[in-house]
Amino acid sequence: MPQGQPTVVPDDGLTTRQRRNRPLVFVHTGVGKGKSTAAFGLALRAWNQGWPIGVFQFVKSAKWRVGEERALRVLGDSGEGGTVAWHKMGEGWSWVQRDLAAGEEAAREGWEQVKRDLAAETYKLYVLDEFAYPMHWGWVDTDEVVSVLRDRPGTQHVVITGRNAPQQLVDFADLVTDMSKVKHPMDTGQKGQRGIEW
Amino acid sequence: MPQGQPTVVPDDGLTTRQRRNRPLVFVHTGVGKGKSTAAFGLALRAWNQGWPIGVFQFVKSAKWRVGEERALRVLGDSGEGGTVAWHKMGEGWSWVQRDLAAGEEAAREGWEQVKRDLAAETYKLYVLDEFAYPMHWGWVDTDEVVSVLRDRPGTQHVVITGRNAPQQLVDFADLVTDMSKVKHPMDTGQKGQRGIEW
Repeated sequence: MPQGQPTVVPDDGLTTRQRRNRPLVFVHTGVGKGKSTAAFGLALRAWNQGWPIGVFQFVKSAKWRVGEERALRVLGDSGEGGTVAWHKMGEGWSWVQRDLAAGEEAAREGWEQVKRDLAAETYKLYVLDEFAYPMHWGWVDTDEVVSVLRDRPGTQHVVITGRNAPQQLVDFADLVTDMSKVKHPMDTGQKGQRGIEW
Repeated sequence: MPQGQPTVVPDDGLTTRQRRNRPLVFVHTGVGKGKSTAAFGLALRAWNQGWPIGVFQFVKSAKWRVGEERALRVLGDSGEGGTVAWHKMGEGWSWVQRDLAAGEEAAREGWEQVKRDLAAETYKLYVLDEFAYPMHWGWVDTDEVVSVLRDRPGTQHVVITGRNAPQQLVDFADLVTDMSKVKHPMDTGQKGQRGIEW
């Protein structure tokens, strides 16, 4: 609940307006719930501003994100806000039984597409859902990710979600939230349910 | 990233299906970003299931939640998913310059409306946005909230957001996530920007 008063005013040669409109990199990490749901919540604000949104889903499951995907597609097609493009990476793999080679290749292809879109300034908000994993596993080079993000042109905001976000990324990002699990229904034997987990 | 395998199977006399479809109370608390955005992300899944959704906004600002409100209204009106009812509490107050008496009254009125809707089973998902504050401040009695939630009829899921969620609520809730701030742009002198903070 920001009160709008920064605690520091940096000597960076920028006006308040320039600083305010600086493109941002967000990281949602930690073992708790809400990393991706918060990223999609952020997409609602971007949509309301009429921004083109690119979602890159670095995860494959029949269930995951189906609600978010359908909602964002309906919003994108409504003509009342921004557009939404939804990219699914790694159609050939899943988290539960993953084929490492195929997963690695898919993640790299996804990242190559993100790089092309950043260079072309295709979107104004990028949701790189679960992208922390391929970095954590070494499938995508974190130093390269940081370098590409640092040099991206224009005003392009990027949200990266997933556990185990690499430290270089955390150091580079503008906003980092760690979602900690205090309590989860699975702790008391409850499995995921429709409408809640997907 | 739940793998679908609970670590405990409780001796509660319920089948897996009964336990799975148990109505849930979520709490998103902590000082980091993403508490409310994750709640609205959850609403996307509920919408996709065709559930009626009730949002109760226990906060007043010209800017806050405008993106989420417009997106959820468009979704609710699309006829392709669940319905969305958006209630704004406390029209007469704001966080920045708050009139305590008016805020307290508005919060109590809001809670009375929530109680009526829970009794009538009006919605299947309730987003009580920033409702932790009126409890923390003692405007609404936490013990009563827990009691009403415990006795609510049918299958009604409830998400409560806000810093300083009272311990009784945390103890009672099924799923609690603490959003911790690792880093925020305001730390480096950047103010909130359109499309990001609202």
